[in-house]
Amino acid sequence: MSADHREQQPAQQGSRIDPHVGRYAHRAQGMVASEVRALFAVASRPEVVSLAGGMPNVSALPLDQFGDLVKDVVSQEGAAALQYGSAQGDPVLREQICDYMTLEGITAVPDDVIVTVGSQQALDLITRVFVDPGDIVLTEAPTYVTAINTFAAFQADTRHVSMDEHGVDPDELDRALTEAERQGQRVKFFYTVPNFQNPAGITMTAERRTRVMEVCQRHDVLVVEDNPYGLLRYDGEPEPTLYSQGNGNVIYLGSLSKTLSPGLRIGWALAPAPVRAKLVLAAESAMLSHSTFNQLVVRRYLSTFPWREQIKTFNAMYSERRDTMLTALSAMMPKGCTWTEPEGGFFVWATLPEGVDAKAMLPRAVTERVAYVPGTGFYADGRGRSSMRLSFCYPTPEQIREGVRRLVGAIEGELDLHATFGTTLPPSTQGSQTPAPDLP
Amino acid sequence: MSADHREQQPAQQGSRIDPHVGRYAHRAQGMVASEVRALFAVASRPEVVSLAGGMPNVSALPLDQFGDLVKDVVSQEGAAALQYGSAQGDPVLREQICDYMTLEGITAVPDDVIVTVGSQQALDLITRVFVDPGDIVLTEAPTYVTAINTFAAFQADTRHVSMDEHGVDPDELDRALTEAERQGQRVKFFYTVPNFQNPAGITMTAERRTRVMEVCQRHDVLVVEDNPYGLLRYDGEPEPTLYSQGNGNVIYLGSLSKTLSPGLRIGWALAPAPVRAKLVLAAESAMLSHSTFNQLVVRRYLSTFPWREQIKTFNAMYSERRDTMLTALSAMMPKGCTWTEPEGGFFVWATLPEGVDAKAMLPRAVTERVAYVPGTGFYADGRGRSSMRLSFCYPTPEQIREGVRRLVGAIEGELDLHATFGTTLPPSTQGSQTPAPDLP
Repeated sequence: MSADHREQQPAQQGSRIDPHVGRYAHRAQGMVASEVRALFAVASRPEVVSLAGGMPNVSALPLDQFGDLVKDVVSQEGAAALQYGSAQGDPVLREQICDYMTLEGITAVPDDVIVTVGSQQALDLITRVFVDPGDIVLTEAPTYVTAINTFAAFQADTRHVSMDEHGVDPDELDRALTEAERQGQRVKFFYTVPNFQNPAGITMTAERRTRVMEVCQRHDVLVVEDNPYGLLRYDGEPEPTLYSQGNGNVIYLGSLSKTLSPGLRIGWALAPAPVRAKLVLAAESAMLSHSTFNQLVVRRYLSTFPWREQIKTFNAMYSERRDTMLTALSAMMPKGCTWTEPEGGFFVWATLPEGVDAKAMLPRAVTERVAYVPGTGFYADGRGRSSMRLSFCYPTPEQIREGVRRLVGAIEGELDLHATFGTTLPPSTQGSQTPAPDLP
Repeated sequence: MSADHREQQPAQQGSRIDPHVGRYAHRAQGMVASEVRALFAVASRPEVVSLAGGMPNVSALPLDQFGDLVKDVVSQEGAAALQYGSAQGDPVLREQICDYMTLEGITAVPDDVIVTVGSQQALDLITRVFVDPGDIVLTEAPTYVTAINTFAAFQADTRHVSMDEHGVDPDELDRALTEAERQGQRVKFFYTVPNFQNPAGITMTAERRTRVMEVCQRHDVLVVEDNPYGLLRYDGEPEPTLYSQGNGNVIYLGSLSKTLSPGLRIGWALAPAPVRAKLVLAAESAMLSHSTFNQLVVRRYLSTFPWREQIKTFNAMYSERRDTMLTALSAMMPKGCTWTEPEGGFFVWATLPEGVDAKAMLPRAVTERVAYVPGTGFYADGRGRSSMRLSFCYPTPEQIREGVRRLVGAIEGELDLHATFGTTLPPSTQGSQTPAPDLP
C-alpha cells in the first residue's frame, strides 16, 4: 500500500464527528487507531491467557534492592536527579552504555550516543530527521508494528523485503534498491531487527549480515539496526552486529527495556557524529531532555547492581518459557501449521494452513480465553493474514501450555469451518493493526 | 523570516563535512544549533552568576521524604511501575491532574488529558498533528524559544504578534489572521503563554483574554495555551484561563516541571476528544508510552504529599528572588534601560537603550562573570537585539544582587563604547539562538 492510499482513510471516517478534521496536518491522517484494540481490551481480562503482549517480566527484578537504590538517588543526588538535563543524555550513563554495548561486540565513544525515551523514540527521531513524505523505507517482512506506524506518521512509503529462516533475503533487498533507483525514488534507510526479530523470532546469520551490508553499501543506503533483544540469547553463539561492519553507515538502536525495565524508558541511538548532532537537536525540540531522574537511577543500577547476573536470571526464565512454548506447539498444533524456533527474544511466529485467517479467528480465540496478535499488523501492505505472533515472555510456563491448548482449540474450530465452507479469508483490508505494548 | 529562508542555511554550512547531508529530510534543515551555546558553556563555570537558565530550584523540596516516597513506589508497586504503560498516561494520574487544574479554574475529565514528557512534548505532538510545511503559527513577540524551534522543525511559518504590558495585542492578532486569510494561507493555531510569560514576564489581563478569544473564535483558529507557571503567582489575583472560555477551541498545556520537578518530565495536554485521540496516536509512535515509573512517583506525590503547601514554599522563595531582582534593577540600571515587573513565574525582560546590542554584549558580560539570554533567541525574525531575558529562579538573592551589579557594569561599558563609536549593532543575523534549559 502506498502512503497516499493510507492517508485517504481516516479523513473519510472522521469527517462527520470531528470539528477539527479540516485542520490536521497531512501526516496526522496516517495516524490510525487499531482495529483490534477493542478486542484486546476484552483480552486483558484475567481469565484470558495473553500470548499477545511483548511485556518483559519485570517481577524477576529484586524490587526491594531496587527500591533502596532509587531512594539513594533521590537523597544523595536529588538536586541533580530532579533537575533538567541535556538533550543528549547524561554523560556518565552514555559511557556506561558504551560499556554495555561491548557485550554486543560494539566499540563506541559516549559522544556518539544519545539517550532516548526507549529505542522507540530513537526510531522516531531518525524518521523525523531523514524522511520526507513519499521517501521509501525498507523493512523486513514482517516487521515491528510500531516502526510501521512511525514511518507512516512521517508519510514514508514503507516497503518490505522477504525473510527466510536465515534472515532477510539480500538478493531481494538488492532488487528493491535497484528498482527504487530505476524509478528515481529515494530509499532513506533499511530498518532491521537482526536478532530474534519482533515479530518473526528469526536471527540473521553471519553470512547474511555480510551480504546485507555489502548490498547496502553498494547502494549507499543507511542501515538502522534495532537490537533490543540481543543479550537475551538462550542458545547458540552471538552474531556480529551490522554496526561493527558498517563503516559509519549504520545507526544502532539499543534499549534497557528488556534487560532491566521498560517503565524507565531508557533506550539509545549510536550514530555517526553529524547524524547524532541532528538527533540531539530533534530530541530537544521533541522534549527538551529525557528524565534526569531515570537516567541517574539507571546510572546507579549499572554501577552498583550485578546486572550481568540479572540478565542471566532473565535468560534462564525466558529460556524455560520459550522451551515450554515450542514443546507445546510441537505436541498440539494441527497438521499444516508451522512456526519459527527463536534462539532468544520474546516471540514465535506461527503460520496457519493456507486460507485460514488469523485475524478473523481472533474473536473465537478470545472466546476460548487466549489472545495473540494477528500477522497483518506487522506488514504495511495487508500481508500476514494466515500468521500470528505468539509471545512467551510474560505468561508463566503453565499459562503458556494452557494458552497453546486453547489456541489449538480455536484453530481446530476454524479448520472445521474451513473444511465445511471453504476459505475463512474475508475481503481484503488495509492498514496496520497496532497491538498495545502493555497488554498482559 | 520565512521557513524557506531558514532552511537554506545549514545545508550550506554542513555540506563540506557531513557525508549524510544529502539524505536528511527537509525539516531537518530547520534544526540548527545555537550560536551562543559555546558561550553558555563558559557561562556555566561556578564563578559566573547565571541569570540565563530557567531551572527551578528543586533543592527546596524535602529530598529525604521524597526518597522514601520513590522507594515505596518500587517496593509496593514495582511490577506496575517498571512495566510499559499506555500512550495516554496513567488513568489515576490523569484524574489527579484534573484536580490540580481546578486550582486554575479548569473543569476537565481525565479522558481529555494526555500525559507527556514535559509540556514540551505536548507542544511537539500538537505541532506534528496540525502543522504541514508552510502553515502559519502565530505567537506572541517575544515567545518561548523552544516553541520556535519546534515549529521550525515542522517547517511552520512562525509569525509574531506584539505584546504590551497587558499581554498580546488583540487588534494586531485580528489583522494577522485577516491578512493570512486574504493571502489564502492557513493559520493552524495561536500559541500563547498567558501567565508570567517566558521570556517577557507579562501576564495577559482578563479583558485581553476575552478579546483574544473573541478574535480567535471569529477567525475559527485554535489556541494553544501554555501555562507552566500559572500557580507561581506572587502578587495579585489569578486571571481566568483561555481554556475556560474557549468553547472547545483551546488546547491547554500544563506541567509539574516548575511546581515539583523538571527531572520527572511530567507535563500534559488537555484537548478536545478528537484532538486528544490524535495526540495519543502521535505519542505512541513517538515513544510507545511515557515512563510508568515517573507517573506512579508523581501519583503518589499528589496523593500523599502536602503539595499545595510545597507550592506555597516555592512561591515564598521565588517571590523574594523576584523582589530582589526588581529592587536591584531599580537601584542600579543605567538611564534608558527598561524592564518588566512580573507578578509571578521566573523571568524579567529587560531592554537596553536603542542601538545597544544585547547579544554583542554577552562576551563582555561573561567576562564580568554574569550571563543572560539575548533577546533575539525569542523571536523567529531577528528582532529583540536590544533586549535580554533575566531569570531569578535559580540564583540566591545574594547572587541576584551581585549578578545585576555585574550586568550593570557590562551595560555601562557598552554604553561608553556606544557614546564613543555609535551603535554596537552588528549586521543583521537570522535564526534563533537556543539557550540550553539546563544552564545553572
